[in-house]
Amino acid sequence: MADRVVVLGTWNSMFSNRVRIALLEKGVEYEYKEEDLLNKSLLLLESNPIHKKIPVLIHNERPICESLIIVQYIDETWNKTSPLMPGDPYERANLRFWGDFIDKKIFDCGTRLVWKSKGEDRDEAKKEFIESLMILEGELGQKTYFGGESFGYVDVALISFGCWFKAYEKTGKFSVEEECPKLMAWVRRCMERESVAKVLPDSGKICEFIDAVKKRFGVE
Amino acid sequence: MADRVVVLGTWNSMFSNRVRIALLEKGVEYEYKEEDLLNKSLLLLESNPIHKKIPVLIHNERPICESLIIVQYIDETWNKTSPLMPGDPYERANLRFWGDFIDKKIFDCGTRLVWKSKGEDRDEAKKEFIESLMILEGELGQKTYFGGESFGYVDVALISFGCWFKAYEKTGKFSVEEECPKLMAWVRRCMERESVAKVLPDSGKICEFIDAVKKRFGVE
Repeated sequence: MADRVVVLGTWNSMFSNRVRIALLEKGVEYEYKEEDLLNKSLLLLESNPIHKKIPVLIHNERPICESLIIVQYIDETWNKTSPLMPGDPYERANLRFWGDFIDKKIFDCGTRLVWKSKGEDRDEAKKEFIESLMILEGELGQKTYFGGESFGYVDVALISFGCWFKAYEKTGKFSVEEECPKLMAWVRRCMERESVAKVLPDSGKICEFIDAVKKRFGVE
Repeated sequence: MADRVVVLGTWNSMFSNRVRIALLEKGVEYEYKEEDLLNKSLLLLESNPIHKKIPVLIHNERPICESLIIVQYIDETWNKTSPLMPGDPYERANLRFWGDFIDKKIFDCGTRLVWKSKGEDRDEAKKEFIESLMILEGELGQKTYFGGESFGYVDVALISFGCWFKAYEKTGKFSVEEECPKLMAWVRRCMERESVAKVLPDSGKICEFIDAVKKRFGVE
Protein backbone atom coordinates (compact mmCIF):
# COMPACT_ATOMS: atom_id res chain seq x y z
CA MET A 1 0.00 0.00 0.00
CA ALA A 2 1.30 3.43 -0.91
CA ASP A 3 1.86 5.84 1.96
CA ARG A 4 -0.89 8.38 2.46
CA VAL A 5 0.65 11.62 3.72
CA VAL A 6 -1.38 14.71 4.55
CA VAL A 7 -0.17 18.03 5.96
CA LEU A 8 -2.52 20.44 7.71
CA GLY A 9 -1.05 23.94 7.75
CA THR A 10 -1.31 27.56 6.70
CA TRP A 11 0.67 29.15 3.87
CA ASN A 12 2.40 31.70 6.13
CA SER A 13 3.25 29.48 9.10
CA MET A 14 6.95 28.85 9.65
CA PHE A 15 5.93 25.73 11.53
CA SER A 16 3.90 24.06 8.80
CA ASN A 17 6.42 25.15 6.16
CA ARG A 18 9.12 23.22 8.04
CA VAL A 19 7.10 20.05 7.60
CA ARG A 20 6.52 20.63 3.88
CA ILE A 21 10.21 21.43 3.23
CA ALA A 22 11.31 18.28 5.08
CA LEU A 23 8.90 16.11 3.04
CA LEU A 24 10.13 17.63 -0.25
CA GLU A 25 13.75 17.08 0.79
CA LYS A 26 12.88 13.40 1.25
CA GLY A 27 10.96 13.25 -2.02
CA VAL A 28 7.75 12.25 -0.22
CA GLU A 29 4.53 13.11 -2.02
CA TYR A 30 1.88 14.65 0.21
CA GLU A 31 -1.50 16.26 0.10
CA TYR A 32 -1.54 19.77 1.57
CA LYS A 33 -4.65 21.12 3.24
CA GLU A 34 -4.75 24.84 4.00
CA GLU A 35 -6.45 25.48 7.33
CA ASP A 36 -8.55 28.52 8.20
CA LEU A 37 -7.49 29.18 11.79
CA LEU A 38 -10.65 31.18 12.48
CA ASN A 39 -12.70 28.15 11.46
CA LYS A 40 -10.59 25.06 12.07
CA SER A 41 -11.46 21.86 10.24
CA LEU A 42 -12.87 18.87 12.06
CA LEU A 43 -9.83 16.94 10.81
CA LEU A 44 -7.48 19.38 12.60
CA LEU A 45 -9.50 19.31 15.83
CA GLU A 46 -9.59 15.52 15.79
CA SER A 47 -5.93 15.12 14.79
CA ASN A 48 -4.54 17.48 17.42
CA PRO A 49 -7.15 17.40 20.21
CA ILE A 50 -4.68 18.60 22.84
CA HIS A 51 -3.36 21.80 21.26
CA LYS A 52 -5.72 22.17 18.26
CA LYS A 53 -2.83 23.76 16.34
CA ILE A 54 -1.18 23.40 12.98
CA PRO A 55 0.91 21.77 11.67
CA VAL A 56 -0.25 18.20 11.79
CA LEU A 57 1.28 15.47 9.65
CA ILE A 58 -1.11 12.58 9.07
CA HIS A 59 0.76 9.50 7.89
CA ASN A 60 -1.44 6.55 7.01
CA GLU A 61 -4.24 7.95 9.20
CA ARG A 62 -1.95 8.49 12.22
CA PRO A 63 -1.43 12.13 13.28
CA ILE A 64 1.88 13.59 14.48
CA CYS A 65 1.98 17.08 16.03
CA GLU A 66 4.56 19.80 16.84
CA SER A 67 6.74 20.86 13.92
CA LEU A 68 10.21 19.83 15.14
CA ILE A 69 8.85 16.50 16.38
CA ILE A 70 7.31 16.00 12.94
CA VAL A 71 10.62 16.84 11.21
CA GLN A 72 12.38 14.23 13.35
CA TYR A 73 9.60 11.72 12.56
CA ILE A 74 10.03 12.39 8.83
CA ASP A 75 13.78 11.89 9.12
CA GLU A 76 13.42 8.64 11.06
CA THR A 77 10.64 7.27 8.83
CA TRP A 78 12.06 8.09 5.39
CA ASN A 79 15.59 7.32 6.45
CA LYS A 80 17.02 6.03 3.18
CA THR A 81 17.53 9.41 1.49
CA SER A 82 18.70 12.91 2.45
CA PRO A 83 19.33 12.43 6.18
CA LEU A 84 18.43 15.58 8.11
CA MET A 85 20.23 14.39 11.25
CA PRO A 86 23.58 12.62 11.59
CA GLY A 87 23.93 9.32 13.47
CA ASP A 88 26.24 10.62 16.18
CA PRO A 89 24.33 11.27 19.44
CA TYR A 90 26.38 14.35 20.34
CA GLU A 91 25.85 15.98 16.97
CA ARG A 92 22.14 15.13 17.17
CA ALA A 93 21.89 16.74 20.62
CA ASN A 94 23.63 19.82 19.27
CA LEU A 95 21.20 20.15 16.36
CA ARG A 96 18.24 19.66 18.72
CA PHE A 97 19.66 22.42 20.94
CA TRP A 98 19.67 24.88 18.04
CA GLY A 99 16.19 23.84 16.90
CA ASP A 100 14.96 24.55 20.41
CA PHE A 101 16.83 27.89 20.44
CA ILE A 102 15.11 28.94 17.21
CA ASP A 103 11.68 28.11 18.66
CA LYS A 104 12.37 29.88 21.92
CA LYS A 105 14.25 32.94 20.69
CA ILE A 106 13.70 33.65 17.00
CA PHE A 107 9.99 32.88 17.09
CA ASP A 108 9.36 34.61 20.39
CA CYS A 109 11.37 37.79 19.73
CA GLY A 110 10.21 37.94 16.11
CA THR A 111 6.58 37.70 17.17
CA ARG A 112 7.00 40.40 19.82
CA LEU A 113 8.76 42.58 17.26
CA VAL A 114 6.10 42.26 14.57
CA TRP A 115 2.86 41.98 16.53
CA LYS A 116 2.94 42.62 20.17
CA SER A 117 5.12 45.52 21.10
CA LYS A 118 5.35 49.27 20.85
CA GLY A 119 7.94 51.89 21.77
CA GLU A 120 10.47 50.62 24.30
CA ASP A 121 9.07 47.08 24.23
CA ARG A 122 9.59 46.98 20.48
CA ASP A 123 13.14 48.28 20.87
CA GLU A 124 13.82 45.54 23.42
CA ALA A 125 12.34 42.87 21.13
CA LYS A 126 14.42 44.18 18.22
CA LYS A 127 17.60 44.11 20.31
CA GLU A 128 16.95 40.54 21.47
CA PHE A 129 15.99 39.45 17.97
CA ILE A 130 19.22 40.78 16.44
CA GLU A 131 21.28 39.30 19.30
CA SER A 132 19.67 35.92 18.64
CA LEU A 133 20.39 36.15 14.92
CA MET A 134 24.01 37.01 15.72
CA ILE A 135 24.28 33.95 17.94
CA LEU A 136 23.02 31.86 15.01
CA GLU A 137 25.48 33.65 12.69
CA GLY A 138 28.25 32.62 15.09
CA GLU A 139 27.04 29.00 15.16
CA LEU A 140 26.88 28.91 11.34
CA GLY A 141 30.38 30.34 11.04
CA GLN A 142 32.05 29.33 7.77
CA LYS A 143 29.86 26.26 7.28
CA THR A 144 27.62 25.87 4.22
CA TYR A 145 24.72 24.66 6.36
CA PHE A 146 24.20 24.46 10.12
CA GLY A 147 24.99 20.74 10.17
CA GLY A 148 27.99 21.12 7.85
CA GLU A 149 28.02 20.30 4.15
CA SER A 150 24.44 19.13 3.79
CA PHE A 151 21.09 20.77 4.42
CA GLY A 152 19.63 19.35 7.63
CA TYR A 153 17.48 19.67 10.74
CA VAL A 154 18.52 23.17 11.87
CA ASP A 155 18.39 24.49 8.32
CA VAL A 156 14.80 23.23 8.01
CA ALA A 157 13.97 24.74 11.41
CA LEU A 158 15.33 28.20 10.58
CA ILE A 159 14.81 28.70 6.84
CA SER A 160 11.05 28.62 7.32
CA PHE A 161 11.53 32.05 8.95
CA GLY A 162 13.40 33.28 5.86
CA CYS A 163 10.31 34.73 4.18
CA TRP A 164 9.51 36.63 7.40
CA PHE A 165 12.89 38.42 7.51
CA LYS A 166 11.67 41.32 5.36
CA ALA A 167 8.76 41.87 7.75
CA TYR A 168 11.10 41.80 10.76
CA GLU A 169 13.41 44.28 9.02
CA LYS A 170 10.55 46.59 8.05
CA THR A 171 9.05 46.68 11.55
CA GLY A 172 12.39 46.95 13.35
CA LYS A 173 14.06 49.24 10.77
CA PHE A 174 17.25 47.22 10.47
CA SER A 175 18.99 45.09 7.86
CA VAL A 176 19.72 41.40 8.49
CA GLU A 177 22.32 41.66 5.69
CA GLU A 178 24.22 44.37 7.60
CA GLU A 179 23.96 42.70 11.01
CA CYS A 180 24.53 39.10 9.88
CA PRO A 181 25.99 38.85 6.35
CA LYS A 182 26.88 35.14 6.64
CA LEU A 183 23.38 34.28 7.80
CA MET A 184 21.86 36.23 4.92
CA ALA A 185 24.13 34.41 2.46
CA TRP A 186 22.89 31.15 4.03
CA VAL A 187 19.26 32.31 3.51
CA ARG A 188 19.96 32.94 -0.19
CA ARG A 189 21.74 29.56 -0.48
CA CYS A 190 18.74 27.77 1.07
CA MET A 191 16.26 29.70 -1.10
CA GLU A 192 17.92 28.19 -4.17
CA ARG A 193 16.89 24.70 -3.07
CA GLU A 194 13.84 23.38 -4.85
CA SER A 195 12.15 22.32 -1.58
CA VAL A 196 12.49 25.76 -0.03
CA ALA A 197 11.63 27.71 -3.18
CA LYS A 198 8.51 25.64 -3.71
CA VAL A 199 7.17 26.00 -0.18
CA LEU A 200 8.03 29.48 1.09
CA PRO A 201 5.78 32.35 0.04
CA ASP A 202 7.15 35.65 -1.22
CA SER A 203 8.39 38.03 1.54
CA GLY A 204 6.15 40.76 0.15
CA LYS A 205 3.07 38.61 0.72
CA ILE A 206 4.04 38.14 4.37
CA CYS A 207 4.34 41.93 4.78
CA GLU A 208 0.93 42.42 3.11
CA PHE A 209 -0.58 39.77 5.37
CA ILE A 210 0.80 41.49 8.50
CA ASP A 211 -0.43 44.92 7.34
CA ALA A 212 -3.90 43.53 6.63
CA VAL A 213 -4.19 41.85 10.03
CA LYS A 214 -2.95 44.97 11.85
CA LYS A 215 -5.42 47.13 9.95
CA ARG A 216 -8.26 44.76 10.74
CA PHE A 217 -7.54 44.76 14.45
CA GLY A 218 -6.55 48.43 14.60
CA VAL A 219 -2.97 47.70 15.70
CA GLU A 220 -0.44 50.47 15.11
CA MET B 1 39.38 5.43 28.76
CA ALA B 2 36.52 5.44 31.23
CA ASP B 3 33.72 7.88 30.53
CA ARG B 4 33.82 11.05 32.58
CA VAL B 5 30.27 12.17 33.26
CA VAL B 6 29.40 15.32 35.20
CA VAL B 7 25.97 16.77 35.93
CA LEU B 8 25.50 20.43 36.87
CA GLY B 9 22.18 20.94 38.64
CA THR B 10 20.28 21.94 41.74
CA TRP B 11 18.70 19.50 44.21
CA ASN B 12 15.16 20.85 43.69
CA SER B 13 15.17 21.26 39.89
CA MET B 14 12.84 18.92 38.01
CA PHE B 15 15.05 19.48 35.00
CA SER B 16 18.35 18.40 36.51
CA ASN B 17 16.66 15.53 38.35
CA ARG B 18 15.50 14.14 35.00
CA VAL B 19 19.12 13.88 33.90
CA ARG B 20 20.22 12.16 37.10
CA ILE B 21 17.33 9.66 37.00
CA ALA B 22 18.09 8.78 33.36
CA LEU B 23 21.77 8.19 34.16
CA LEU B 24 20.89 5.95 37.13
CA GLU B 25 18.43 3.99 34.97
CA LYS B 26 21.31 3.34 32.58
CA GLY B 27 23.70 2.45 35.40
CA VAL B 28 26.07 5.28 34.40
CA GLU B 29 28.27 6.62 37.18
CA TYR B 30 28.45 10.40 37.32
CA GLU B 31 29.77 13.23 39.40
CA TYR B 32 27.07 15.62 40.57
CA LYS B 33 27.85 19.29 41.14
CA GLU B 34 25.26 21.36 42.97
CA GLU B 35 25.03 24.86 41.49
CA ASP B 36 24.24 28.03 43.38
CA LEU B 37 22.01 29.89 40.91
CA LEU B 38 22.71 33.21 42.61
CA ASN B 39 26.42 32.66 42.03
CA LYS B 40 26.81 30.40 39.01
CA SER B 41 30.05 28.48 38.57
CA LEU B 42 32.46 29.31 35.78
CA LEU B 43 31.97 25.72 34.59
CA LEU B 44 28.23 26.32 34.15
CA LEU B 45 28.73 29.66 32.38
CA GLU B 46 31.29 28.12 30.04
CA SER B 47 29.29 24.93 29.42
CA ASN B 48 26.00 26.65 28.62
CA PRO B 49 27.05 30.08 27.34
CA ILE B 50 23.77 30.64 25.48
CA HIS B 51 21.22 30.10 28.25
CA LYS B 52 23.51 29.89 31.33
CA LYS B 53 21.02 27.46 32.86
CA ILE B 54 21.10 24.10 34.57
CA PRO B 55 21.09 21.23 33.86
CA VAL B 56 24.21 20.58 31.86
CA LEU B 57 25.56 17.10 31.23
CA ILE B 58 29.28 17.11 30.54
CA HIS B 59 30.35 13.86 28.88
CA ASN B 60 34.10 13.53 28.29
CA GLU B 61 34.46 17.33 28.44
CA ARG B 62 31.62 17.95 25.93
CA PRO B 63 28.57 19.79 27.32
CA ILE B 64 24.95 18.97 26.40
CA CYS B 65 22.14 21.33 27.48
CA GLU B 66 18.32 21.28 27.84
CA SER B 67 16.97 18.44 29.98
CA LEU B 68 14.89 16.51 27.44
CA ILE B 69 17.65 16.81 24.84
CA ILE B 70 20.06 15.44 27.45
CA VAL B 71 17.72 12.52 28.26
CA GLN B 72 17.58 11.63 24.55
CA TYR B 73 21.38 11.92 24.34
CA ILE B 74 21.74 9.57 27.32
CA ASP B 75 19.36 7.08 25.71
CA GLU B 76 21.18 7.19 22.37
CA THR B 77 24.68 7.04 23.92
CA TRP B 78 24.17 4.28 26.49
CA ASN B 79 21.88 2.31 24.22
CA LYS B 80 22.71 -1.22 25.34
CA THR B 81 20.63 -1.23 28.52
CA SER B 82 17.23 0.06 29.70
CA PRO B 83 16.00 1.80 26.53
CA LEU B 84 14.01 4.92 27.41
CA MET B 85 12.61 5.23 23.88
CA PRO B 86 11.33 2.51 21.54
CA GLY B 87 12.71 2.09 17.99
CA ASP B 88 9.45 2.83 16.18
CA PRO B 89 9.41 6.41 14.82
CA TYR B 90 5.69 6.92 15.50
CA GLU B 91 5.98 5.81 19.13
CA ARG B 92 9.06 8.01 19.52
CA ALA B 93 7.17 11.02 18.13
CA ASN B 94 4.33 10.30 20.53
CA LEU B 95 6.67 10.20 23.54
CA ARG B 96 8.35 13.43 22.40
CA PHE B 97 4.91 15.04 22.13
CA TRP B 98 4.14 14.22 25.77
CA GLY B 99 7.57 15.35 26.94
CA ASP B 100 6.92 18.67 25.24
CA PHE B 101 3.42 18.83 26.76
CA ILE B 102 4.88 18.36 30.24
CA ASP B 103 7.39 21.18 29.69
CA LYS B 104 4.78 23.52 28.26
CA LYS B 105 1.82 22.78 30.53
CA ILE B 106 2.84 21.11 33.78
CA PHE B 107 5.89 23.28 34.33
CA ASP B 108 4.22 26.49 33.22
CA CYS B 109 0.93 26.06 35.12
CA GLY B 110 2.69 24.60 38.17
CA THR B 111 5.07 27.56 38.29
CA ARG B 112 2.23 30.06 37.99
CA LEU B 113 0.33 28.19 40.69
CA VAL B 114 3.18 28.11 43.18
CA TRP B 115 5.04 31.36 42.56
CA LYS B 116 3.48 33.88 40.34
CA SER B 117 -0.21 34.22 40.89
CA LYS B 118 -2.76 35.44 43.38
CA GLY B 119 -6.56 35.41 43.58
CA GLU B 120 -8.23 34.82 40.23
CA ASP B 121 -4.91 34.24 38.45
CA ARG B 122 -4.09 31.49 40.91
CA ASP B 123 -7.53 29.93 40.42
CA GLU B 124 -6.96 29.97 36.67
CA ALA B 125 -3.48 28.41 37.04
CA LYS B 126 -4.95 25.75 39.35
CA LYS B 127 -7.73 24.94 36.89
CA GLU B 128 -5.28 24.62 33.97
CA PHE B 129 -2.86 22.59 36.08
CA ILE B 130 -5.52 20.06 37.09
CA GLU B 131 -6.83 19.89 33.49
CA SER B 132 -3.29 19.15 32.29
CA LEU B 133 -2.85 16.42 34.91
CA MET B 134 -6.17 14.91 33.82
CA ILE B 135 -5.00 14.86 30.20
CA LEU B 136 -1.90 12.98 31.36
CA GLU B 137 -4.09 10.64 33.46
CA GLY B 138 -6.06 9.90 30.26
CA GLU B 139 -2.86 9.25 28.29
CA LEU B 140 -1.56 6.91 31.02
CA GLY B 141 -4.85 5.00 31.13
CA GLN B 142 -4.41 1.43 32.34
CA LYS B 143 -0.71 1.29 31.39
CA THR B 144 2.01 0.68 33.99
CA TYR B 145 4.19 3.44 32.55
CA PHE B 146 3.58 6.07 29.87
CA GLY B 147 5.46 4.04 27.25
CA GLY B 148 3.79 0.75 28.29
CA GLU B 149 5.40 -1.94 30.43
CA SER B 150 8.77 -0.31 30.99
CA PHE B 151 9.85 2.98 32.55
CA GLY B 152 10.84 5.38 29.76
CA TYR B 153 11.23 8.89 28.38
CA VAL B 154 7.86 10.37 29.46
CA ASP B 155 8.14 8.76 32.88
CA VAL B 156 11.55 10.41 33.36
CA ALA B 157 10.14 13.72 32.10
CA LEU B 158 7.17 13.74 34.49
CA ILE B 159 8.29 11.91 37.65
CA SER B 160 10.83 14.66 38.36
CA PHE B 161 7.76 16.78 39.22
CA GLY B 162 6.56 14.11 41.67
CA CYS B 163 8.24 15.69 44.68
CA TRP B 164 6.60 19.02 43.79
CA PHE B 165 3.05 17.61 43.86
CA LYS B 166 2.62 18.26 47.59
CA ALA B 167 3.59 21.91 47.09
CA TYR B 168 1.13 22.26 44.18
CA GLU B 169 -1.60 20.66 46.33
CA LYS B 170 -0.83 22.87 49.31
CA THR B 171 -0.88 26.11 47.29
CA GLY B 172 -3.93 25.16 45.21
CA LYS B 173 -5.82 23.38 48.02
CA PHE B 174 -6.64 20.25 46.03
CA SER B 175 -5.67 16.59 46.03
CA VAL B 176 -3.93 14.97 43.04
CA GLU B 177 -5.09 11.61 44.45
CA GLU B 178 -8.75 12.68 44.24
CA GLU B 179 -8.47 14.31 40.80
CA CYS B 180 -6.18 11.74 39.18
CA PRO B 181 -6.00 8.46 41.13
CA LYS B 182 -4.26 6.52 38.34
CA LEU B 183 -1.61 9.20 37.97
CA MET B 184 -0.98 9.19 41.72
CA ALA B 185 -0.65 5.37 41.68
CA TRP B 186 1.90 5.85 38.86
CA VAL B 187 3.81 8.38 41.02
CA ARG B 188 4.00 5.85 43.88
CA ARG B 189 5.07 3.10 41.44
CA CYS B 190 7.86 5.30 40.07
CA MET B 191 8.95 6.37 43.56
CA GLU B 192 9.69 2.71 44.33
CA ARG B 193 12.37 2.63 41.65
CA GLU B 194 15.90 2.98 42.97
CA SER B 195 16.81 5.70 40.45
CA VAL B 196 13.85 7.89 41.40
CA ALA B 197 14.08 7.27 45.16
CA LYS B 198 17.79 8.12 45.13
CA VAL B 199 17.44 11.38 43.21
CA LEU B 200 14.18 13.07 44.25
CA PRO B 201 14.17 15.06 47.48
CA ASP B 202 11.42 14.73 50.06
CA SER B 203 8.19 16.64 49.22
CA GLY B 204 8.36 18.37 52.60
CA LYS B 205 11.74 19.86 51.73
CA ILE B 206 10.32 21.33 48.52
CA CYS B 207 7.49 22.96 50.54
CA GLU B 208 10.02 24.35 53.04
CA PHE B 209 12.15 25.68 50.19
CA ILE B 210 9.14 27.46 48.62
CA ASP B 211 8.08 28.94 51.97
CA ALA B 212 11.61 30.18 52.63
CA VAL B 213 11.92 31.85 49.19
CA LYS B 214 8.47 33.46 49.51
CA LYS B 215 9.33 34.77 52.96
CA ARG B 216 12.63 36.15 51.73
CA PHE B 217 11.04 38.02 48.85
CA GLY B 218 7.91 39.01 50.78
CA VAL B 219 5.56 37.02 48.49
CA GLU B 220 2.17 36.11 49.93
